[in-house]
Amino acid sequence: MKKALIIGGTGTIGSAVAKALSTTHEILIASRSSEYQVDLASPTSIKALFDKVGTVDAVIISAGSAHFGPLATMTPEDNLLSANNKLLGQVNTVLIGKDYVADNGSFTLVTGIIMDEPIKDGASAAMANAGVKAFAKSAATEMPRGIRINTVSPTVLDESWSIYKDYFVGFETVSSNKVANAFVKSVNGVQTGQSFTVYQ
Amino acid sequence: MKKALIIGGTGTIGSAVAKALSTTHEILIASRSSEYQVDLASPTSIKALFDKVGTVDAVIISAGSAHFGPLATMTPEDNLLSANNKLLGQVNTVLIGKDYVADNGSFTLVTGIIMDEPIKDGASAAMANAGVKAFAKSAATEMPRGIRINTVSPTVLDESWSIYKDYFVGFETVSSNKVANAFVKSVNGVQTGQSFTVYQ
Repeated sequence: MKKALIIGGTGTIGSAVAKALSTTHEILIASRSSEYQVDLASPTSIKALFDKVGTVDAVIISAGSAHFGPLATMTPEDNLLSANNKLLGQVNTVLIGKDYVADNGSFTLVTGIIMDEPIKDGASAAMANAGVKAFAKSAATEMPRGIRINTVSPTVLDESWSIYKDYFVGFETVSSNKVANAFVKSVNGVQTGQSFTVYQ
Repeated sequence: MKKALIIGGTGTIGSAVAKALSTTHEILIASRSSEYQVDLASPTSIKALFDKVGTVDAVIISAGSAHFGPLATMTPEDNLLSANNKLLGQVNTVLIGKDYVADNGSFTLVTGIIMDEPIKDGASAAMANAGVKAFAKSAATEMPRGIRINTVSPTVLDESWSIYKDYFVGFETVSSNKVANAFVKSVNGVQTGQSFTVYQ
């Protein structure tokens, strides 16, 4: 059976992806606190994770912290959370992890609708999301051994609506299962360099 | 007369922008080596620049270093050049500089076609460009005092074709004057949150 490493596999999206891929893949869950621990902000930690898990067929990220806050008071230091974690954390997972992915394997990274449709307090996170999307699109052209790379851009989840509804005024919500299906398309489909949007 | 600060004003694009804006603005040129020195990778240096120039009407960036190189050998450290300089350098110029921009002033940042159309060795720079674009689009919704912010995405310049032609196979080139005109649209026009592409 193929192996899938899901970084952020304990979250709402990650759990749904784990379930959706469980018929085709043995699932390894990585997070800040699970058996396979990782801190996305640390290249050393990412390297240690791959040394521990060894070769996998699919690497999926459904994690990554970003700064949310008003532009008026945002400092360069605030913005570093998004840069170091959601953006560089995902990029570094590809740069470091590609040598651990089996031939014809895949990476699937996560972005978000706010890179396309701004929300209040979202400029820093938008920066991170769009950087990940463009990196993956370009990296797809240079991936070795048939390895593919795509990104999934979800809108706000049904499950998170009560928390975030004041930020996503007029946005549609989607189920985590629908978002997970886009990850399945990336992992078990044939496309590469794509941004799969799940906006409604 | 209004004042425009052009960071990277000694380069091919920056010089063309300076010329194009010279009928409407007093031009202040900043670069690594001109009267107004700045190192985009350093928030402290950016702050010192604005303390020196004081209030300006338009802040234009036509600078920013990025890493170009094969994905196969790219390290997290290589990629930091793009992150710290072209991406965070421009974002930090907005975060720090917005308090120095006059009411109804503007920021115009620079991205590039390779975020939309990948080229060989371009994944790191694509990441930086797209991050800048999305940040500006979102930041536009929160800019104070009528300040606008746009980005300009040029393709390769006529002037640079002989150097870069092997990377931009089949791309159209444009003159630096045509790119400068997009900066003029951003500075003297009415739009905000836009990405002005100059791809042919």
